[in-house]
Amino acid sequence: MGNFQVRTDLALEARESVNRTEGELRGVRVEEYYREQEDVKVTKVMIDTKNAAKAMGKPVGTYVTMEAPAMVEPDEDYHREISECLAKELLEILPPREGEQSVLVVGLGNREVTADSLGPQAVDNLLITRHIVKEYGAAAYNCDRMNLVSALEPGVMAKTGMETAEIVKGVVKETSPDALIVIDALAARSIRRLNRTIQITNTGIQPGSGVGNHRNALTEESLGVPVVAIGIPTVVDAATIVSDALEKMLEGRERADAAEYVGRQELNFPELNNMYMTGKDIDAVIKRVSFTVSEGINIALEVHGQEEGHI
Amino acid sequence: MGNFQVRTDLALEARESVNRTEGELRGVRVEEYYREQEDVKVTKVMIDTKNAAKAMGKPVGTYVTMEAPAMVEPDEDYHREISECLAKELLEILPPREGEQSVLVVGLGNREVTADSLGPQAVDNLLITRHIVKEYGAAAYNCDRMNLVSALEPGVMAKTGMETAEIVKGVVKETSPDALIVIDALAARSIRRLNRTIQITNTGIQPGSGVGNHRNALTEESLGVPVVAIGIPTVVDAATIVSDALEKMLEGRERADAAEYVGRQELNFPELNNMYMTGKDIDAVIKRVSFTVSEGINIALEVHGQEEGHI
Amino acid sequence: MGNFQVRTDLALEARESVNRTEGELRGVRVEEYYREQEDVKVTKVMIDTKNAAKAMGKPVGTYVTMEAPAMVEPDEDYHREISECLAKELLEILPPREGEQSVLVVGLGNREVTADSLGPQAVDNLLITRHIVKEYGAAAYNCDRMNLVSALEPGVMAKTGMETAEIVKGVVKETSPDALIVIDALAARSIRRLNRTIQITNTGIQPGSGVGNHRNALTEESLGVPVVAIGIPTVVDAATIVSDALEKMLEGRERADAAEYVGRQELNFPELNNMYMTGKDIDAVIKRVSFTVSEGINIALEVHGQEEGHI
Amino acid sequence: MGNFQVRTDLALEARESVNRTEGELRGVRVEEYYREQEDVKVTKVMIDTKNAAKAMGKPVGTYVTMEAPAMVEPDEDYHREISECLAKELLEILPPREGEQSVLVVGLGNREVTADSLGPQAVDNLLITRHIVKEYGAAAYNCDRMNLVSALEPGVMAKTGMETAEIVKGVVKETSPDALIVIDALAARSIRRLNRTIQITNTGIQPGSGVGNHRNALTEESLGVPVVAIGIPTVVDAATIVSDALEKMLEGRERADAAEYVGRQELNFPELNNMYMTGKDIDAVIKRVSFTVSEGINIALEVHGQEEGHI
Repeated sequence: MGNFQVRTDLALEARESVNRTEGELRGVRVEEYYREQEDVKVTKVMIDTKNAAKAMGKPVGTYVTMEAPAMVEPDEDYHREISECLAKELLEILPPREGEQSVLVVGLGNREVTADSLGPQAVDNLLITRHIVKEYGAAAYNCDRMNLVSALEPGVMAKTGMETAEIVKGVVKETSPDALIVIDALAARSIRRLNRTIQITNTGIQPGSGVGNHRNALTEESLGVPVVAIGIPTVVDAATIVSDALEKMLEGRERADAAEYVGRQELNFPELNNMYMTGKDIDAVIKRVSFTVSEGINIALEVHGQEEGHI
Repeated sequence: MGNFQVRTDLALEARESVNRTEGELRGVRVEEYYREQEDVKVTKVMIDTKNAAKAMGKPVGTYVTMEAPAMVEPDEDYHREISECLAKELLEILPPREGEQSVLVVGLGNREVTADSLGPQAVDNLLITRHIVKEYGAAAYNCDRMNLVSALEPGVMAKTGMETAEIVKGVVKETSPDALIVIDALAARSIRRLNRTIQITNTGIQPGSGVGNHRNALTEESLGVPVVAIGIPTVVDAATIVSDALEKMLEGRERADAAEYVGRQELNFPELNNMYMTGKDIDAVIKRVSFTVSEGINIALEVHGQEEGHI
Repeated sequence: MGNFQVRTDLALEARESVNRTEGELRGVRVEEYYREQEDVKVTKVMIDTKNAAKAMGKPVGTYVTMEAPAMVEPDEDYHREISECLAKELLEILPPREGEQSVLVVGLGNREVTADSLGPQAVDNLLITRHIVKEYGAAAYNCDRMNLVSALEPGVMAKTGMETAEIVKGVVKETSPDALIVIDALAARSIRRLNRTIQITNTGIQPGSGVGNHRNALTEESLGVPVVAIGIPTVVDAATIVSDALEKMLEGRERADAAEYVGRQELNFPELNNMYMTGKDIDAVIKRVSFTVSEGINIALEVHGQEEGHI
Repeated sequence: MGNFQVRTDLALEARESVNRTEGELRGVRVEEYYREQEDVKVTKVMIDTKNAAKAMGKPVGTYVTMEAPAMVEPDEDYHREISECLAKELLEILPPREGEQSVLVVGLGNREVTADSLGPQAVDNLLITRHIVKEYGAAAYNCDRMNLVSALEPGVMAKTGMETAEIVKGVVKETSPDALIVIDALAARSIRRLNRTIQITNTGIQPGSGVGNHRNALTEESLGVPVVAIGIPTVVDAATIVSDALEKMLEGRERADAAEYVGRQELNFPELNNMYMTGKDIDAVIKRVSFTVSEGINIALEVHGQEEGHI
């Protein structure tokens, strides 16, 4: 079905796509493990070379994918464990550092569009410490050291008139964090991955991916500090759905026959541009998974449960 | 493409569907006119017989469809005119009445899911007069008579544990309005109709239609008072999209051939259940069209611009 | 300072007020205990006679007040314990019942006014089971029996044109719950009680109390089922603030002298009507305490952590 | 009543305060006019010298106050006229400029606290053009020239961990607007001025004023571009209320006697810190006046009604 341009923000899916047609790929290493206790399957895709990056359609870097089927269910205890998994993976991918670390967390997306509100909602539940530590020191938390967490919800271009990258770059220059964590809603290829997959990558955010067109590159190269991106697929591209359905429909036929059949056609769905598909309970799902993400960050940055409240 | 179950809340589309295969339909009258000044095309579909209702998959009654291509554009003056059109059509379909009229407006849908928030957002902008008139009389508005407008946002079953119909029925019994106006987001078959079509019908709301599964019947039969429903299609069913894309793809082939080809298949997309498709700027669109709807109701009920403020 | 009309929704404060001038009051029993583990002081005020009710300005019934100073602090573990306290007190005051119980939880107040949004926000976090149990039975939760929890956010009269009592009465008649739990933001007399006190009472809600004027009586008498009200003071009446400040100012003088001094005055602050006072971090406070309340209800109704998710 | 520290963000009130005790003030010029058609009284206070600035507790600059009693009423046509007044005054105070002008509008305050949400809500209704003009030129609006409007909602320090000034400074450096318009909710001294007064000043925003503590200086000096601040008083300080009430209470006595009486006291209300007072219908008020402000800016920047919609 290579005739369709299948759009996915997940390196895992990009790799499946590539593998299917071309077998094992040079310059791409894959590592898989299963965390039994939490029922989370982790896949690490490491893209090492520019050629591999081109073949995958993803930049060089490390992509960790946590697949947690139970994430769509409302069991709170389970979510705590996913948050702890996320914290461990975050700490592995964040640059190591002695002493207090200053981290700016950026919640991308549009709060007013439910499926695109993961970033803003996750930022709402973060424990913000930077202003307290700067004013009163770690002592305000009865600690010797306390990481400085700040957060930004830059909004979308239709509402700001500015590229997200412009806003973030300005704030980074002015506040000089040691690292960025960027949270965003992603587009998946497969409906089965919706809302139950977390991708963590050290490549930051590239233009053109995600639910909306609400950003340029947010990368270490463009911002001057390490950028870790956390994403959860909450939508599927409309064009992808059509592709999947056609593929399923044609499965009964000979593959080549089907490909030939489809290939003859001029497949072009301009009406589907800027359309996306999501589930009817997306509000409840986003509420839960945004909490899972923010808790994961709180745990990783060791600010969880230590705060003394507003001062 | 009759093999697919195509879902639409629009009588206009149901009729097109039927006509395509069976020609003119007995028991269905159609009236069309064009309001040049406002660039609104109005189609009235009147389903007169039970047989016709069965063929159309819609209950007996009158369905007015306003197609206003410019509705998706942010020109405020245009919207005022659409609101005035809506007011006129509403007054024609509402039961005539002497003296003050008491109307309960019900905003269906889920405020937290953008594409499903038309009803709640429209209700936000209504001018509510019932409590004032009951307490102080029409004199509070410097008028001899003033309609009594009340509004309800019943919420969705996942959040209330109750059928919308249970809530509405209880409130109707307790407050005895003369008529109900029910506002809801609809599902269209065609992407081209999204957000630029308003359907007004005197059949009320039937179970199983709309974005969510958030109601049972809200009809004159079940509630004891006339029920006029105002709906705007804001989503397309995922299954419908697939159908439309397949149809387009197969257009080049002989029709019969294509039907045969598709017919052999077992077409079943259980994953697409409870999924819907919408546009990326749905937040801005809903904000605008909900205002158009509430202004239309305000004008029709003559409460526009007369209120004296909260007392 | 009896010249001022001091308004409070807390029976605890009403009693302090009365005691101060008249000593122990006939027909009012008071019970106090301290839950050391949770640092919660509980005061039970039981108004037994009509005379006592008149003196207190509160109807006959039981008023449980939990004072939890740490409630304003963001320590999540502490809040869990307050929720468990609340659950215990709720179960004592709710009518005992064998088998499955059907409870309607009503979130009073205005979601758009932060200090008045306790009810709506608490309702957001409830686990709603009624529709699932009615459709699939307790088996959907892998249980033999499961209480049926439903929830309603009736909104405020300025937006609905209806009395809250009309809406609630209608829904109660239509859905026949065994009991009501009503959640509302209260007005306290003392700033020190703001956001750190929970009042639970079996008298329901009386007209004229609370932040807004958004309800009539919601009582067992008016609704036909037991009504337990849970309230947290989130505001202080502006007039009360003035009273407190004057009292403090006059403390240095002879009491009688001060009273005489104040008494001569015509004290009338019509501008302060419909004004209230609250803290600048009220958004964060309401977010936390609404969660404490909803968790308490979830625990009491044994629906916590058992749900299987949306079906 | 000079013993009380009376806090106001309105230069008009600061001047009244000063005048009362000291008569006409050197270095302060006052100009008043009345716009009969719109029933708006305009007072221009120009603080010309540092001495005057010190006496007034406000920096050197021009403060325009529009008093529009009808602003609290929901008559939409009236508000249009207030918006046009605002536009005229804005254009007088904004630096003159040939050709296209790039203006960044900053909505200060906390969207989650109703009385503090004026800035964020006003920004919601702005017509944002910068991204369109930069991508497609003024031709996208069928114009020869089109001002570039961008907008930012920086959020409050408790949620970002950053000073508002840090965020704004970074964004200004990165996007280089020609001027800033900053919108904020203010604190008034007098309840009668709440929600019916608009202050426009070229001094920008100074630390320590407003509803929350959510900003440092946003001034031409600190940002390098002209900063015009638009503010509407939506709250009164709790301490101010007490002061006003005491003053009223003491009016019947001899002034000197009262001052002596009050002066003996140690007046200190630490509990009132971080408390504010507002009206119960603050949600409806803010919704209306935020629209008045954004329309005023849209008119002044000539972007009103010209936009073609999202591209």
